[in-house]
Amino acid sequence: MKQTIYKLVSWTLLVSCLTVTLPSQAQSWTETAPGVWKISVGKPEAYNLLIAAESSPDLAALTRLGTTAFPLDKSDISLRVEGGKTYLRFPLDRTEQIFGFGLNFQTVHQRGRIMQLHVDHYGTKDDGRTHAPLPFYVSSKGYGVFVNSARYINVYAGSAVRKDSKNPPEVQDRNTDKNWSARPYSDAVEMLVPAEGVELYVFGGPTTMDAVRRFNLFNGGGCLPPRWGLGFTQRVNRLFSAADVEKEAQAFEDKKYPLDFIGLEPGWQSKSYPCTFEWDKTRFPQPEAFIKTMLNKGVRMNLWTNLFVSPEASIYPKIAPFTGSHTVWVGAVPDLTMPQAREILWGKFASDHVNIGVGGYKIDEVDGYDYYLWPDVATFPSGRSAEQMRQTYGLLVQKQSTDLFRKRNQRTYGLVRASNAGGSSLPYVIYNDNYSHEDFITALVNSGFAGVLWTPEVRASKTSEEWLRRFQTVCFSPMAMINAWSSSTKPWSFPDVAEQVKAMAQLRMQMMPYWYTAFANYHFDGTPPFRAMNLEAGFQVADRKEVLTASLEENPYAEAVRKEVKDQYMAGEYLLVAPLFTGQKSRTVILPKGKWYDFYTGQFAGDGELITVTPGLDKIPVFVKDGGIIPMMPSLLHAPKPDQKVDLDIRHYGEKPGQYKLYDDDGETFNYEKGQYSWRTINVEKQKSGQWKGTISKPEQGKPNTVGNVTWRFMTTNVSK
Amino acid sequence: MKQTIYKLVSWTLLVSCLTVTLPSQAQSWTETAPGVWKISVGKPEAYNLLIAAESSPDLAALTRLGTTAFPLDKSDISLRVEGGKTYLRFPLDRTEQIFGFGLNFQTVHQRGRIMQLHVDHYGTKDDGRTHAPLPFYVSSKGYGVFVNSARYINVYAGSAVRKDSKNPPEVQDRNTDKNWSARPYSDAVEMLVPAEGVELYVFGGPTTMDAVRRFNLFNGGGCLPPRWGLGFTQRVNRLFSAADVEKEAQAFEDKKYPLDFIGLEPGWQSKSYPCTFEWDKTRFPQPEAFIKTMLNKGVRMNLWTNLFVSPEASIYPKIAPFTGSHTVWVGAVPDLTMPQAREILWGKFASDHVNIGVGGYKIDEVDGYDYYLWPDVATFPSGRSAEQMRQTYGLLVQKQSTDLFRKRNQRTYGLVRASNAGGSSLPYVIYNDNYSHEDFITALVNSGFAGVLWTPEVRASKTSEEWLRRFQTVCFSPMAMINAWSSSTKPWSFPDVAEQVKAMAQLRMQMMPYWYTAFANYHFDGTPPFRAMNLEAGFQVADRKEVLTASLEENPYAEAVRKEVKDQYMAGEYLLVAPLFTGQKSRTVILPKGKWYDFYTGQFAGDGELITVTPGLDKIPVFVKDGGIIPMMPSLLHAPKPDQKVDLDIRHYGEKPGQYKLYDDDGETFNYEKGQYSWRTINVEKQKSGQWKGTISKPEQGKPNTVGNVTWRFMTTNVSK
Repeated sequence: MKQTIYKLVSWTLLVSCLTVTLPSQAQSWTETAPGVWKISVGKPEAYNLLIAAESSPDLAALTRLGTTAFPLDKSDISLRVEGGKTYLRFPLDRTEQIFGFGLNFQTVHQRGRIMQLHVDHYGTKDDGRTHAPLPFYVSSKGYGVFVNSARYINVYAGSAVRKDSKNPPEVQDRNTDKNWSARPYSDAVEMLVPAEGVELYVFGGPTTMDAVRRFNLFNGGGCLPPRWGLGFTQRVNRLFSAADVEKEAQAFEDKKYPLDFIGLEPGWQSKSYPCTFEWDKTRFPQPEAFIKTMLNKGVRMNLWTNLFVSPEASIYPKIAPFTGSHTVWVGAVPDLTMPQAREILWGKFASDHVNIGVGGYKIDEVDGYDYYLWPDVATFPSGRSAEQMRQTYGLLVQKQSTDLFRKRNQRTYGLVRASNAGGSSLPYVIYNDNYSHEDFITALVNSGFAGVLWTPEVRASKTSEEWLRRFQTVCFSPMAMINAWSSSTKPWSFPDVAEQVKAMAQLRMQMMPYWYTAFANYHFDGTPPFRAMNLEAGFQVADRKEVLTASLEENPYAEAVRKEVKDQYMAGEYLLVAPLFTGQKSRTVILPKGKWYDFYTGQFAGDGELITVTPGLDKIPVFVKDGGIIPMMPSLLHAPKPDQKVDLDIRHYGEKPGQYKLYDDDGETFNYEKGQYSWRTINVEKQKSGQWKGTISKPEQGKPNTVGNVTWRFMTTNVSK
Repeated sequence: MKQTIYKLVSWTLLVSCLTVTLPSQAQSWTETAPGVWKISVGKPEAYNLLIAAESSPDLAALTRLGTTAFPLDKSDISLRVEGGKTYLRFPLDRTEQIFGFGLNFQTVHQRGRIMQLHVDHYGTKDDGRTHAPLPFYVSSKGYGVFVNSARYINVYAGSAVRKDSKNPPEVQDRNTDKNWSARPYSDAVEMLVPAEGVELYVFGGPTTMDAVRRFNLFNGGGCLPPRWGLGFTQRVNRLFSAADVEKEAQAFEDKKYPLDFIGLEPGWQSKSYPCTFEWDKTRFPQPEAFIKTMLNKGVRMNLWTNLFVSPEASIYPKIAPFTGSHTVWVGAVPDLTMPQAREILWGKFASDHVNIGVGGYKIDEVDGYDYYLWPDVATFPSGRSAEQMRQTYGLLVQKQSTDLFRKRNQRTYGLVRASNAGGSSLPYVIYNDNYSHEDFITALVNSGFAGVLWTPEVRASKTSEEWLRRFQTVCFSPMAMINAWSSSTKPWSFPDVAEQVKAMAQLRMQMMPYWYTAFANYHFDGTPPFRAMNLEAGFQVADRKEVLTASLEENPYAEAVRKEVKDQYMAGEYLLVAPLFTGQKSRTVILPKGKWYDFYTGQFAGDGELITVTPGLDKIPVFVKDGGIIPMMPSLLHAPKPDQKVDLDIRHYGEKPGQYKLYDDDGETFNYEKGQYSWRTINVEKQKSGQWKGTISKPEQGKPNTVGNVTWRFMTTNVSK
């Protein structure tokens, strides 16, 4: 027996040793989908981000993207397990830029930064604590790296310097060298995963955008909201009654402000913080009738909730055994990795909300902050750690709540405070309690690197200028929303800009075909509908060194590298949006290479240059790429119904011919997943006569077709070379 | 064989299970020293804070303190290992206050806070990242808890709420309850140690001060600096030459400002950041002769350094194999847990510095911040993790550098940027780059809970008022220092307050017998020389509930609880120091119960009350406890030499008789550890005549005696009831 133990122990030791160092030649990257490579380091944990999100790759779409070469020199990658932790290292070129690591609010360029990726509210610092701290980055060299771990990962994104570096920084003497730097050059991204192994993915290019697309498609493709999700939404005061809500909707109708859904805040529940998930009998005596009434008016209901179960909730006794050791606001935390907890919680949501017509949720406080949420010392009955639950709770609630609607073949579109990698396909938009307009736009910029959506929601404003400026940006975002839960503001609350606000809301509705197609591209091709300039081909710079010597006025790309461009972004296929903030009368805009045209007038704006615009208070600067096509519809007050034909007014900009694929389906169900959708080809070409002409392909037989009459608008009449 | 494996596996599983849950009844606390209990949870790591500090308990002193009961209900303590981490929970009473967790800069009361204890620079937020983030707290109920781990520990200091709490907070409805709180009441301190086990200690009372004393004595007792360490020190411009330094010292002498040691900043080294540890031949052509000259003038040399080895250092080739995988400013990081690295590094320090007369070091940048220091992905040849090195590097350098001097039977007193638990006996004072005067004082307050020393160093000032106010506080701190490494300021740089500054420096020197004895009490009894009001008996409040209803004006203790008292502190046995900050003409001072007297005039100041003082610019408010005795000496320019007799002018304050133990030894060597010291008893009593009379016990035969003539000063002539 002794002998046997000895042998077994030796064998175990041997195995441990093998796990400890994994020499690079022993690495085996498998192409798990076209252009997507996977490797397992050590013993990856059973639970990870992709498991939580229950995502599955869209292999057909990945195949359409084609294959590409493994984008890195494998011998420069170091992956090993030591002392129970996983050490990862990926190389960086001297001029390489990196982006991503989730929903950052102040920074776009991530090279040189140090983070601990940790789901949390945004605490006014980009340090890895954010609503969606994805362990995913993309490189200007055209590849992406994803660490599929539900752990708090330490990231040194080109800041750590190794003694054995092949590209070491120079030694300087601080006493006398003027070039001495506190942050010497680093040639690698290094990460520390507090687990004995991890699953890793590399996404190929050749462009950075391709890597992003592959990442999104690998997660199942981006979400496709219902059409009504892209209309306007108002969140009402937290203590509104059914009658108050009906009155509010009527006011929108009377004043002719678009409105597609209303958000009810905590007061719809009998108790909140912690929650009962039950309607308050006083404020909402007949919820089902109320919702039906509202639906008849074309207005859907979205319900705020957090998931901390009040001891006074009817489900409490049943769900208690399947909740964590610690409470949040004295409410129990469902262990949503357990089928029992899911069944009890979502069963309640189905019977009391979804089955009586509720259209979606705003799922609050699944992010942080530490003083409110369950602590890291909490345990959960499934055995998942508090850390794993923190990193994935946003994914779990998104996926599981979406499934309630999926069961009814009904799309939803909601709000959530936390997400992570794997969630691209989940129809939720992230929001938070911060209210820096600038940071909100930077988050919109970064959302495109992360496969998440973000809304720069409007709440209250000190001035009508601020109100309008904020309103303009939210209309060029994934969710056009006023969140008046506390302020009770309305779109018309500032009378001197009420008409301009209405015009913006109407523009949002007019552009619905464009937005809807942008989301279809997100779903079918993985292209983020809202994204950073850095993903735009003509925007990229070849060499960082150029930057240091170039004059920024002559070469705006230098500016783009030296100073982060975090206040302008791409929206859909063709639009560049450059918002103004309170106090600004004019601003500079960096136009990528290629010609750009003013969205409102069609006039030439510039080509690969830094321009200054002074748009006036009622305009948000928007530019269209040469050859851009923007399909518009009439400004309805509600999104069109599934069978409703809608006239199109198709705009063309610039001097290049235009080609565009317009997406169409019923706008409400998941039938598009069974092929019930169509792409109509729109062509705009110049005739021999010099006149522009537009054509749209015929509707496909047996496929959805909501297009009514088509008119054409050639915006750029004065075509110049 | 299969059968055997099965059995073995079962047995292993069984063992794992036993490790996983350690029911409280199975806990076995051992009284490892009188009033100190120890327990091992799971498998404690071989490397920990006490190992790094190489500290050993002063059992004799602990025995003198006597025994006490285990201060907690053991069944309320929960200790277990799960998923590779150690979960610790200690109970809290509803009214209990807790203090400690290291060198905090903004908070004194720690209950309700969340931290991750992580050695780092202070980043203007108390979040566990600090120069000395000790896993040690004390309670107002009179006990202390210490987690002997060199890991980043997550602490929930009474913020996490358990579902199974015996004292749960009430459920509230945020919709309507006005009492709803985002931070419900918690009845426990919970900690998460990322290791499979840990060594824990509990320190008994009955008072909070007793718990602190036990902790310090368990770490070997507080440090006893050489007498010269308590004199004045000036740090000169970083590029000063030997001639510049000599000129500076001469200016002090000529102007009659006290000066005991001068600090040389990076320019003494041939290269810095990273360092060579070698004298710069241009600025210091003959270091040995230079140091001898300075010593002859009564001025010692203290050398700045960090420990990152320049590739151009002569020791680089030898030490390189014993350094970490990553560099700091391109310098190699010695693995100071390895004998080889120690020998090479400290051998250099001995031969080039200590053996030619250098008196001490300022060891910089052993704390953080992340962008400069080695990353958590670094590895070290000893196998210690980057995290363990980060948590202990401050201890390692303090201990190992002190040993260089100990070998020469020569005490040292220096500066360091990081420390941790176990370091009480190491003769180093912590400093940093922050410069908030208020935060500096709060750190001084908190240092006393942590067994560390802190200096609110003076660097530069915008106004003469600020200069003098800062100077006043540094003279009532462990190290009276101007750090002019960059500013080149001198004590007389602000002519309009130059005389007041000199008077303060002279007061510092006059009080040397009091300061020296305060440190002897630190060493022999564990009493911190500088400490929070909360450790003062008459300051404590019995019940937090009282506070909420009491009028703060009537009951200042209420104020002490509600608003943190972080701007006044105790210094030595009898003094209460209440500094003023720039812009303040007057301030309030909370006097604990018992009579207090003005330090300068001897007049009665108050008794257990809130007073307002308007001291004028040239005074820092200081109050003396009733019966307080303050031994003073003439204001020499340099600390007395070992055999130098010094006259004493002994002050007595108040109406109570005074008794005081005056410490004496040679002031420079470690001979006190072999019994070469004496305590002289000073008594002040009122005669029948109503006159006060003071006596001092005779010097002990064969023991050091530096006391010359003794005079008496009875400060409080107007004795009232």
